Amino acid sequence: MINDIFFHAHINEHIFYEIKKERTVVGYYDLPLTDITYLSRLDKFHQKHIVVVGIGGSSLGAKAVNTFLSYKKHTKRTLHFLETTDPITLKSALDQIDLNDSLFVIISKSGRTIETISIFKYILSLKPFNKQDFVFVTDMDSPLFKLGLQEGIETFYIAKNVGGRFSVLSSVGLIPLYLMGYDISELLRGARDIRNSFFDENTQIKESLLKKASFYAEHMLHYNINALFSYSELFRDFNAWYVQLWAESLGKKQLNSQLNVGLTPVGLIGPTDQHSFLQLIVEGPKDKTVTFLKIDNFNDTTKIPDKNLKYLESLNLLNNIEFAQLINMQADSIIENLKNRDVPLDIIQIDQASIYHIGELFYYYELLTSLTGKMLNVDTYGQPGVEEGKKILKTKLSTSISSLRFVAR
Amino acid sequence: MINDIFFHAHINEHIFYEIKKERTVVGYYDLPLTDITYLSRLDKFHQKHIVVVGIGGSSLGAKAVNTFLSYKKHTKRTLHFLETTDPITLKSALDQIDLNDSLFVIISKSGRTIETISIFKYILSLKPFNKQDFVFVTDMDSPLFKLGLQEGIETFYIAKNVGGRFSVLSSVGLIPLYLMGYDISELLRGARDIRNSFFDENTQIKESLLKKASFYAEHMLHYNINALFSYSELFRDFNAWYVQLWAESLGKKQLNSQLNVGLTPVGLIGPTDQHSFLQLIVEGPKDKTVTFLKIDNFNDTTKIPDKNLKYLESLNLLNNIEFAQLINMQADSIIENLKNRDVPLDIIQIDQASIYHIGELFYYYELLTSLTGKMLNVDTYGQPGVEEGKKILKTKLSTSISSLRFVAR
Repeated sequence: MINDIFFHAHINEHIFYEIKKERTVVGYYDLPLTDITYLSRLDKFHQKHIVVVGIGGSSLGAKAVNTFLSYKKHTKRTLHFLETTDPITLKSALDQIDLNDSLFVIISKSGRTIETISIFKYILSLKPFNKQDFVFVTDMDSPLFKLGLQEGIETFYIAKNVGGRFSVLSSVGLIPLYLMGYDISELLRGARDIRNSFFDENTQIKESLLKKASFYAEHMLHYNINALFSYSELFRDFNAWYVQLWAESLGKKQLNSQLNVGLTPVGLIGPTDQHSFLQLIVEGPKDKTVTFLKIDNFNDTTKIPDKNLKYLESLNLLNNIEFAQLINMQADSIIENLKNRDVPLDIIQIDQASIYHIGELFYYYELLTSLTGKMLNVDTYGQPGVEEGKKILKTKLSTSISSLRFVAR
Repeated sequence: MINDIFFHAHINEHIFYEIKKERTVVGYYDLPLTDITYLSRLDKFHQKHIVVVGIGGSSLGAKAVNTFLSYKKHTKRTLHFLETTDPITLKSALDQIDLNDSLFVIISKSGRTIETISIFKYILSLKPFNKQDFVFVTDMDSPLFKLGLQEGIETFYIAKNVGGRFSVLSSVGLIPLYLMGYDISELLRGARDIRNSFFDENTQIKESLLKKASFYAEHMLHYNINALFSYSELFRDFNAWYVQLWAESLGKKQLNSQLNVGLTPVGLIGPTDQHSFLQLIVEGPKDKTVTFLKIDNFNDTTKIPDKNLKYLESLNLLNNIEFAQLINMQADSIIENLKNRDVPLDIIQIDQASIYHIGELFYYYELLTSLTGKMLNVDTYGQPGVEEGKKILKTKLSTSISSLRFVAR
């Protein structure tokens, strides 16, 4: 991975030492070093469909990897995600699945996520609760963990100090990916390489991370929006993973001042969004930083054929160009345009669309989030703001149940 | 459609008259009144796959409708979109299609869109250029229009005064949707009803539109982000349509001052994004307005079954609740939470997920964009900012061609 920055920023050495200290407490930092032999407990399952029941941090990581690599078609298994309470979508998704040839992976850190448990219960109304068709992934001692032990379900725990949105390299992300046959050791090697180049060496990546975090935090009032402009549809769900990580980690009350701070992530896909959001970046308010994410090598030589179409001769300059060349030229043209327009931008380049490289990207963005959170002085790892909504929902549910009972009587 | 606003805003009557004037010049306003008998020219096509080749405004509208309604499975045809120069995605999409049973609908307003023509040429290298397998949709007299006439292709024009991102109710959106068997007249009726309730009556919708446009424009420095929080996965591509419309129309230099203005759209899906972006709305900076979009009636009575799981007794309050009830309760809980936190919000409710109602939504958002653009004093209908990138790309392509030739010699 290469990361070039095109704006001026300084390095805050102090933050580096703060993060080094944090590493001893916060669990995600050492996930690339974890022993993963426990995954072999999954070898006994042979179902064709792997169905993850989980929402937010419980699904976004595995989904990002699967979308990034699904074009490789390396396995006959298919991966599905059930995450919404929207009944139409839920039933459409279930229509794609043979319930008798599915392994359901129920993932919930708290073990009591409303969406996840609702869907789990619905599944149990469609098929018997055979222990060989279920895997649980949850916090040690959560209600779901206890249920798993009681029912003899293969149950995996999530380390207490690994938050949901930082859990892609833990059992949460690894279990579905291992079941799909992806090379987990390569994923972790990618993450480990970024870890080492940040903590143990003086690399360009370390410098870029420290500079970006400083810049984003110091200019948060001016540049309150961070766009990730990823040049390939393969990044569609990686973008969604990034949006969760950034929004939920940094949108917080400041620890000292109680001021509401945070940065708004926007995920864009090139070249599609050149025909959409780009105009706003070019001519709109200068309130955005932009990171371009590029794949150097698509390993695909498909060319635009050497065809002359009458009246369209001016586009013959596309002939014989590889699509892979074209998409990267499109990215470079936009980059050049924005450099001329004072938009703070940087470029991340990975060599190819491989599991090693998405491992790098995960760890890179987790580090960037931790660093920026430290600079903003927020609790990067909690999400207190969503609790109140859950409480209100519980009250609504209780009221609705009493009224149902009243009607029934 | 109902639209309730929960912030204080005034109405600028002047803008209403400005828009009434603009209606005589800008083409999209009267699209719901257009004669659509021309669509019967498509009745001669019987291919199973409808493949739209187009990007941005040429694809987002039809895609929004198709995603919204695909659960109804009313036709045996399938709709595909080829829009990216990413070779991996392009080839995966083509793998889903039987080239010998496909109608290719090539849509490009200028008739020379780089992505669209590149993909069109690629298709021509895979199958013969039979006129019965292609439909063109483009500006009158564009290069593509001329090519269509010459080759005897069924060619439709786009009215000159209808911009790409405002074209969903023109031939651009209607042709793919008609081919898919959707009830176009209902789509237009929905749009027409909003048109009438804005221009000819004093309705709540008119009042809401005028108030929202005023508020967004007057507070653009404070609230520079507008989130659309749509409660159903069915809105996934409608959100993308909204993002293009809002970003590309409003991100502009102001006509008088040359100041860079604009508002950043963010598309969210509930309840999924309650586990992602929501934390940032609740505890992050107060720089966002939020619109909630809800479906009153999912026409689905699927319930969470009355199942008691040991250790999870606290969630028994979900039992016997319909999923459709639950998702709307989730929305209402978040709304209640945000009302307590001084976030300027409004709620759009539609009765059900039908083509009539997405027709309403399209026209509603087009009006809102026009009104806000007028308040911001920008040229809502151009996109000058993206031209420079295209020029740079052309230079890069020319250079690359000369170097290819140099190597070849």
